[in-house]
Amino acid sequence: MRIVVDAMGSDAHPAPDVAGAVMAAREFGDEIILVGDQPRVEAELAKHDTTGLPLRIQHASQVIEMTDKPGEASRTKKDSSMHVGLRLVKEGEADAFVSAGNTGGVLAVATLHTLRRIRGVLRPALGVIFPIKERPMLIDNGANADCKPEYLLQFGLMGSLYVERILGLSNPRVALLSNGEEEGKGNELIKETIPLLASSGLNYVGNIEPKEFMRGHADVGVTDGFTGNLVIKTAESVASYMSDQIREELMSNPLTILGGLLSRPAFKRIRRQLDPDEVGGAPLLGVNGVVVIAHGRSNTYAVKQAVRQARRMVEMKVVEAIATGLEKAPTQVVAGEE
Amino acid sequence: MRIVVDAMGSDAHPAPDVAGAVMAAREFGDEIILVGDQPRVEAELAKHDTTGLPLRIQHASQVIEMTDKPGEASRTKKDSSMHVGLRLVKEGEADAFVSAGNTGGVLAVATLHTLRRIRGVLRPALGVIFPIKERPMLIDNGANADCKPEYLLQFGLMGSLYVERILGLSNPRVALLSNGEEEGKGNELIKETIPLLASSGLNYVGNIEPKEFMRGHADVGVTDGFTGNLVIKTAESVASYMSDQIREELMSNPLTILGGLLSRPAFKRIRRQLDPDEVGGAPLLGVNGVVVIAHGRSNTYAVKQAVRQARRMVEMKVVEAIATGLEKAPTQVVAGEE
Repeated sequence: MRIVVDAMGSDAHPAPDVAGAVMAAREFGDEIILVGDQPRVEAELAKHDTTGLPLRIQHASQVIEMTDKPGEASRTKKDSSMHVGLRLVKEGEADAFVSAGNTGGVLAVATLHTLRRIRGVLRPALGVIFPIKERPMLIDNGANADCKPEYLLQFGLMGSLYVERILGLSNPRVALLSNGEEEGKGNELIKETIPLLASSGLNYVGNIEPKEFMRGHADVGVTDGFTGNLVIKTAESVASYMSDQIREELMSNPLTILGGLLSRPAFKRIRRQLDPDEVGGAPLLGVNGVVVIAHGRSNTYAVKQAVRQARRMVEMKVVEAIATGLEKAPTQVVAGEE
Repeated sequence: MRIVVDAMGSDAHPAPDVAGAVMAAREFGDEIILVGDQPRVEAELAKHDTTGLPLRIQHASQVIEMTDKPGEASRTKKDSSMHVGLRLVKEGEADAFVSAGNTGGVLAVATLHTLRRIRGVLRPALGVIFPIKERPMLIDNGANADCKPEYLLQFGLMGSLYVERILGLSNPRVALLSNGEEEGKGNELIKETIPLLASSGLNYVGNIEPKEFMRGHADVGVTDGFTGNLVIKTAESVASYMSDQIREELMSNPLTILGGLLSRPAFKRIRRQLDPDEVGGAPLLGVNGVVVIAHGRSNTYAVKQAVRQARRMVEMKVVEAIATGLEKAPTQVVAGEE
């Protein structure tokens, strides 16, 4: 297997990206192609012992920065690490692409300029595995701020196929994330999506609120990308706020300081469990190839985990499953404006 | 001051509602009018020592239940505790209405059948004080699942006036809650609202993500009711999930159990700080009277705190401030489809 790692992706690129690639090559034995500015990537790679590791560099002269406007940059920086890396996947020179870079950039380059969509897909979407025990997927997490009911229907299908393949769940439970479970709740988008999901052949279990989602009442939570992004970001913010508060409160007197020291192993386990780095990254579902987008603030371990996720998507043939799923789906699943 | 408490509101009514009213009458000395089924409320009241407390009962023969459809129930149950209570406010027999009942029910009865909207208000909205240190308001929290830019503009104005009056902030910072701070981020609704807020005369500080909102970068976070409701519910779910996980992990071995015991005071302070009961309830802004809606699962203390919030809104003349604010606002703030 050959996996492309965008060496110019993360906020602190190329250090964590290169170190993560080295770690992945060592752990998985797959060939890793680092794409980016050759001299910089070489210099970074020289800091590691890479003897015998299947690593190589592919030069790309440009970088789509976090501050770039995705649409514009995807048109003007045709030799960016994202373009070069995704072209390798498109041309069959590599099996997957991993980047911790500008999410909108990867989206635009993958969807509009290189891989393009799987036949029948209206809008690719970002799935995120929620870092709680049951590991449900929330989809879309920000690829599509404004959605139509048909998009949400397809997000449900793609998410369902993903968790079926990757988590090994049979007949995954698909739910709409909403402000209430009762009939009549939801916004117009939700209300129009319900009948589509109900007749889709998916295991649609109704609308659920965040509380039920966090308790594992669904394997796939479907939402528009604006709401999904705010839900994920709220969850991360609250978790981080609570951790800070706990630390602060524990420091308030000698007994709680001692208590905090004794409790430390327990807190470590919780932090690890809730750590988005463990999950790896968000798969971009619906494009014609395996793409995983990691957090901009990814460290070495997070990049390595994103590679892990990408190789698993290749192994389990997630892209092929989505293509076949769309072919076999009832006509309304692939009907839409284009 | 005379405050109506819906005795038939909470999930466990009338016990917590009546007990909360008694606690409020004792603490604040205001006259409390308990509205509900007279025999049941009398029986409940008899469990308390109410000697000398300014409490009375107003009979209402019907109850809008949590399971009722709000629109329908508000039309058919004209003698519900919500109708009777809100009519008292409308007719000047009371100064405020507090209920832990069906949110949609209170909304419908207040907006369509009794108090009605303040002149110029397009849509009343639910404001929620986020239970973090800085106590910012998130508005709308679920009154309007589908919104137009003009609604959001008015939510910003109403929220701004609320925190100015109640929290004593001058020139409160108003922000749009969005999936990114950069230009070009947001869904269509957000993008169309930006120019309205920017030229509104409010202290509009731009778009903020949940992380910045949780760090107190704005005093008022404006959002549509669908998104706002999911954000609040996600925050509550994550806080509760983390508390459960911490408890479970702390029980895992003797040292962490000891650590947990020693840390207990610290955890108690955090739980109290994040406790939605402390806040009291959500003010329904934009209707012609003071209305506070508490959680369905409110306990005695939460009901009492909701009364506290309502009396403060009366004292600080929040309804009058909104009416005046709308009169003085630039024309686009009150322009709209109706």
